[in-house]
Amino acid sequence: MNINPRVKDIEVSLIRKIAIKSKEYKDVINLTIGEPDLPVPFQIVDETTSYMKNNRMGYPPLGGLLELREEITKFYKKHHNTLYNLDEVLVTAGAAEAISTVLKTILEVGDEVLVPLPFYPGYLPNITLNGAIPVLIDTKDNNFQLTVELLESYITPKTKAILLNYPNNPSGVILSKENLNSIMEFLRDKNIYIIADEIYSQLNFNDDFVSVGIYDFLKEYTIIINGFSKSHSMTGWRVGYILSSKTLIKEIIKVHQYSVTSPSIISEYGGYIALSKCLDVSRSYRNEYQKRSNYIYNRLVDMDIITTKPSGSLYVFGSLENYNISSSLDFSYDLLDKKQVAIVPGLAFGTEGFFRVSCTLPLEKLEVAMDKLEEYLVDKK
Amino acid sequence: MNINPRVKDIEVSLIRKIAIKSKEYKDVINLTIGEPDLPVPFQIVDETTSYMKNNRMGYPPLGGLLELREEITKFYKKHHNTLYNLDEVLVTAGAAEAISTVLKTILEVGDEVLVPLPFYPGYLPNITLNGAIPVLIDTKDNNFQLTVELLESYITPKTKAILLNYPNNPSGVILSKENLNSIMEFLRDKNIYIIADEIYSQLNFNDDFVSVGIYDFLKEYTIIINGFSKSHSMTGWRVGYILSSKTLIKEIIKVHQYSVTSPSIISEYGGYIALSKCLDVSRSYRNEYQKRSNYIYNRLVDMDIITTKPSGSLYVFGSLENYNISSSLDFSYDLLDKKQVAIVPGLAFGTEGFFRVSCTLPLEKLEVAMDKLEEYLVDKK
Repeated sequence: MNINPRVKDIEVSLIRKIAIKSKEYKDVINLTIGEPDLPVPFQIVDETTSYMKNNRMGYPPLGGLLELREEITKFYKKHHNTLYNLDEVLVTAGAAEAISTVLKTILEVGDEVLVPLPFYPGYLPNITLNGAIPVLIDTKDNNFQLTVELLESYITPKTKAILLNYPNNPSGVILSKENLNSIMEFLRDKNIYIIADEIYSQLNFNDDFVSVGIYDFLKEYTIIINGFSKSHSMTGWRVGYILSSKTLIKEIIKVHQYSVTSPSIISEYGGYIALSKCLDVSRSYRNEYQKRSNYIYNRLVDMDIITTKPSGSLYVFGSLENYNISSSLDFSYDLLDKKQVAIVPGLAFGTEGFFRVSCTLPLEKLEVAMDKLEEYLVDKK
Repeated sequence: MNINPRVKDIEVSLIRKIAIKSKEYKDVINLTIGEPDLPVPFQIVDETTSYMKNNRMGYPPLGGLLELREEITKFYKKHHNTLYNLDEVLVTAGAAEAISTVLKTILEVGDEVLVPLPFYPGYLPNITLNGAIPVLIDTKDNNFQLTVELLESYITPKTKAILLNYPNNPSGVILSKENLNSIMEFLRDKNIYIIADEIYSQLNFNDDFVSVGIYDFLKEYTIIINGFSKSHSMTGWRVGYILSSKTLIKEIIKVHQYSVTSPSIISEYGGYIALSKCLDVSRSYRNEYQKRSNYIYNRLVDMDIITTKPSGSLYVFGSLENYNISSSLDFSYDLLDKKQVAIVPGLAFGTEGFFRVSCTLPLEKLEVAMDKLEEYLVDKK
């Protein structure tokens, strides 16, 4: 088949492979999913359906509905202390489109993009599709904290961008304010784009998350990505956004326009209701995920599994170091086979010897799953 | 700014420039728009809002909702005599995403893509963003009919694909069955992808449109793009689809997944209702556009403007040949200035000396606009 070889090279993700495999079993407890189980807040559905009935759902304005862009800038100002204007926001067809569109806008063939490990698997294909090279930074021995020292040893003249994702999927780690400060200070005048995927920022358990948007001296190089899939369970709505400088947004919007034209206006309106009226619900969701996350963390610690306590996100990331298990993929398949519990191997995130557990099931189910994991591990030491 | 130079090279489209300029005037009759004025059929809004209230709007399955993909294959079978299976359909975030995703999947740097004139302006940036080269085929002297003879003189060893768009935006022309037959016969064994943007196929006034999907011997090279924006006025919903071979869909879906994940599940469901329950409404819309199209056509002919009678689409494309007007852009600005009627210069579609009129206003408004155009033209001979 005579197509773009970069597309041929993309393989089916390990997460999907595990998901497909798990369908061969009955009564699987599926802890592989990044989709919140809590419902979309009622008011979002209610007001959006009214809006649909009373308005023509034509093309939204290029860049996004004005009222949504206003809410986004207000929200980031209030919660993250940033100053963005209306022409510094672009509403996208989900955070996935935002990542794809941003990378397509800035990358050229041969550019290097720094990606700290462990990483969200969707980044890599979007880098390689543009002919650029992902350069993986191993943060495992530093509790998944990226530092200037680590960064320094990976930067080359070809480094075009760095992809930050905190709270991190899969580890739940956030960068300490000190680390972020020194990293941004270090990047000053380096002409390297800082792409920050802040999709889990509303699931920030201790309110200590710091957005990269506060570093004004790097504004021309800073690109923030966020959305409503995790904060308001709006996965199927496909709506997210980008915050950056006016100059960059002007270029990003061209790629956006020719890639998707716009998100669905229905979803844009839903996003507007989410920010203007449903931040309390979102906060109660965060508390629920925190409870589940703490529960899983404590259970894993009791099983002698080394984990970094998550500061946010929907996940807990455990190490198999204390067990006689070398392949995280074999472990995943075997656990599924023996106990019908599905988890994602660390390999999927570029980090062998680990596994990811999702907190997207009610506590009672998580309890059963942890019991089964414990039984499974009993004879693995 | 250190970004992808191909992005920098994209300019604001002429259509947008005219639209922006027209905002400087009061009481403009805007005939530049490709957005249907007829409403989204009531049943689509009604059933989709119920669906939203009674179901969790999570991620739709990769490739699209099963019931929608079923309706798409049935619809194409019934109306266009094609045979596509469920794994040969991909639901996209609008036809725009379909075009972008398909071109990204197949194109490599240096590839040539044949584009018959006049063309929909969105194609070119999607070709050049991939480092490929648009090769424009002038069909003006042949009543906008593409022929094998024309095609032959533009094909090179670098030709990777041809982009067909019939009913054509802006000319309203459809390829005659004879021409399409010989073109497809000619392309047999040439290893050239046929990308057919059939977005206006439901606005086919004389039921004589033939889909490229009927040529089984070229199935591995045929990619059909369609959607709901024009047939059901669902522009803001952003939902479209791709039909192709299973092998190709498997590759296209990778790019789709990493570009947007999926369309909004709400919009996918709306598309399902559109095809399963609202084809009659769509047909009545077609009749209304045909009435308007005929009206504009007759008025232009009376003004001694050479036009090819549209067989479909939302547009009428007129030539300025009989008038003393050399620049279609100057003509557009001057008509806007003198008569507050906004049309799109042919230049926007790669065809100087022409202009496009949209049929997206009620007949009474079109009448006023045509009167004003007539007044304007009086002293231009």
